[in-house]
Amino acid sequence: MQEKLFPFDTLRRFANDVFLKIGCNDKDAGTAASALVSADLRGIDSHGIARLSGYVRLWESGRINSRPDISIIHETPSTAVVDGDSGLGLVVAPFAMELAIRKAKECGTGWVSVQNSNHFGIAGYHAMMALQHEMIGIAMTNASPLVAPTFSIDKMLGTNPICVAAPAGEEPPFVADLATTTAANGKLEILQRKKQRTPHGWVQDDKGEASTDADILKKGGALLPLGGDRDHGSHKGYALGAIVDIFSALLSGANYAPWVPPFPAYVPMPAQQPGKGIGHFLGAMRIDAFRPAEAFKSNMDHWIRGFRNARPKNESEPVLVPGDPERKMENERRESGIPLLPAVTEDLRKLGEKLEVNCPF
Amino acid sequence: MQEKLFPFDTLRRFANDVFLKIGCNDKDAGTAASALVSADLRGIDSHGIARLSGYVRLWESGRINSRPDISIIHETPSTAVVDGDSGLGLVVAPFAMELAIRKAKECGTGWVSVQNSNHFGIAGYHAMMALQHEMIGIAMTNASPLVAPTFSIDKMLGTNPICVAAPAGEEPPFVADLATTTAANGKLEILQRKKQRTPHGWVQDDKGEASTDADILKKGGALLPLGGDRDHGSHKGYALGAIVDIFSALLSGANYAPWVPPFPAYVPMPAQQPGKGIGHFLGAMRIDAFRPAEAFKSNMDHWIRGFRNARPKNESEPVLVPGDPERKMENERRESGIPLLPAVTEDLRKLGEKLEVNCPF
Repeated sequence: MQEKLFPFDTLRRFANDVFLKIGCNDKDAGTAASALVSADLRGIDSHGIARLSGYVRLWESGRINSRPDISIIHETPSTAVVDGDSGLGLVVAPFAMELAIRKAKECGTGWVSVQNSNHFGIAGYHAMMALQHEMIGIAMTNASPLVAPTFSIDKMLGTNPICVAAPAGEEPPFVADLATTTAANGKLEILQRKKQRTPHGWVQDDKGEASTDADILKKGGALLPLGGDRDHGSHKGYALGAIVDIFSALLSGANYAPWVPPFPAYVPMPAQQPGKGIGHFLGAMRIDAFRPAEAFKSNMDHWIRGFRNARPKNESEPVLVPGDPERKMENERRESGIPLLPAVTEDLRKLGEKLEVNCPF
Repeated sequence: MQEKLFPFDTLRRFANDVFLKIGCNDKDAGTAASALVSADLRGIDSHGIARLSGYVRLWESGRINSRPDISIIHETPSTAVVDGDSGLGLVVAPFAMELAIRKAKECGTGWVSVQNSNHFGIAGYHAMMALQHEMIGIAMTNASPLVAPTFSIDKMLGTNPICVAAPAGEEPPFVADLATTTAANGKLEILQRKKQRTPHGWVQDDKGEASTDADILKKGGALLPLGGDRDHGSHKGYALGAIVDIFSALLSGANYAPWVPPFPAYVPMPAQQPGKGIGHFLGAMRIDAFRPAEAFKSNMDHWIRGFRNARPKNESEPVLVPGDPERKMENERRESGIPLLPAVTEDLRKLGEKLEVNCPF
């Protein structure tokens, strides 16, 4: 499995061309490509360009509308509900985040719940949009059901991630971007390729028994909420995933719980849909709606340095601040390129051929 | 260790009388007593009346001001920062939550960060205040440092709880109230009394090594973030605790991270305090700032019933919805009384004697 390195701009340009080819306008194609490939840059390979052909298949099956008329269907000074018109989540979520930022400028905070959208890539991309406005950014999304709540055999929730991004002063920003499961699906995929087992507490089998089989999802198993089991706090991970579902879908009128549409286009849609598409929740809080931004950022620097200087158990593993590993990865990959597996480049090559897009693979 | 049962109203009245005696006015004493004893009612015994003498000791040492001039030091239409004037968190947090609710009525949502406060009891009490207004309530607080971040020996964060309460229609509300650690301190205390060991992933020793000693905090050990260790997602629990700290203290100007004042009055205050007191964060989102409340509540009923009807691994352990165990406990304890351990009643009896308060113990 020899990986090959590709410059960020090469991948972004290819994604851009593909999105143009399926009918996106220039602006949307650019936004979608940047959002998608930001995942590769930050080391969340499962959510990056490897998913591009999956998005195209959803468009082919009519589940993604490449020319959406994204609209605000309800609003107050600090809130809105956006209808994504079945557009790419990669485009709909930035629209909603810009709206949240606009509202935060006007009345301190902005909170936008989104219905009728699709997979939005990594939460971090959207939350981090707030940073350049001296705001805290928040992004959540629900996702297709892969997670069994505590005591359940049935898969009732997605990996439902939460991202919170907060600006600092001299230090880089705090960016916590986490699935509400013990491990995200991408971590399983890495173990599958290496033919390794998972640690305890990541997955269970189709009878709800503990498992360490990285392929267990294909056999009716489930991912577990953060915590793993009841003794280790899985009811908390379950509650966090549920909160994401409520904010993203119950507040917007999107589908929720096991009724969230699946990402793979070949998986049939749930028979009874209580809402429209999948749901997101985007928030922006203007720092100076609370305190002078300089005071906040100076305290953030102090906070961040405090954690970095905490005594580590092992000298070789310093205490990190949320966002550190992804930023380190981004710096490396901007410099030396983004590694892609042969299976991914082969898939992208076929995609390029089919859509007659200039292909670097 | 024979427990004795006491009616809710008896405990609330005693707490009320104690708060009056230390100088609270009638309204504040009533609020503080209700907030405090709601923990006993909901089964979170570590945060209830067992802590009453601890609050009094903080007042005796001059760290709690029983006649605070709670003030709004900055605000926008959807935000505010409140200075608690060293008041009881049990009083300051309801003030802040009422303000958040008022702002939500006016512009859709309200978000209040609080400085210069003290321990606020259970997050659930404050978040649930929003329910009667057809709003989602959110409550967080930072707390004295007992938790070691991933890879750290040093204790840098408190158990930093998050509560989200959302109304339903015919079903009872969704109430997720969780410490961002694998287990809260109260769970350790139960094991200490039973002389039992903890499950793996709850605590570490003073060298950062895994431990199952329920007394380890007294020996320099630490609680662990939800997840336990890196392989099981402790970096996510750490990130969640950090988010609570940022919202509660960095946005308000309260103390944060290891500089949060300790709850026990005999523990000296941190030498250098970057802020004032401890910090909270309270939020309220009006449901109909997003969607008609009836549509939301009907979907919430459907959501809740979906989870209750998920197939359980064991027939004897049905799938629960966040808030179920606490509500069941509350119903039982309203009926048959609240059990107190002899050590607790003895402590309260002495407190009553010292303050010359009519004592039911």
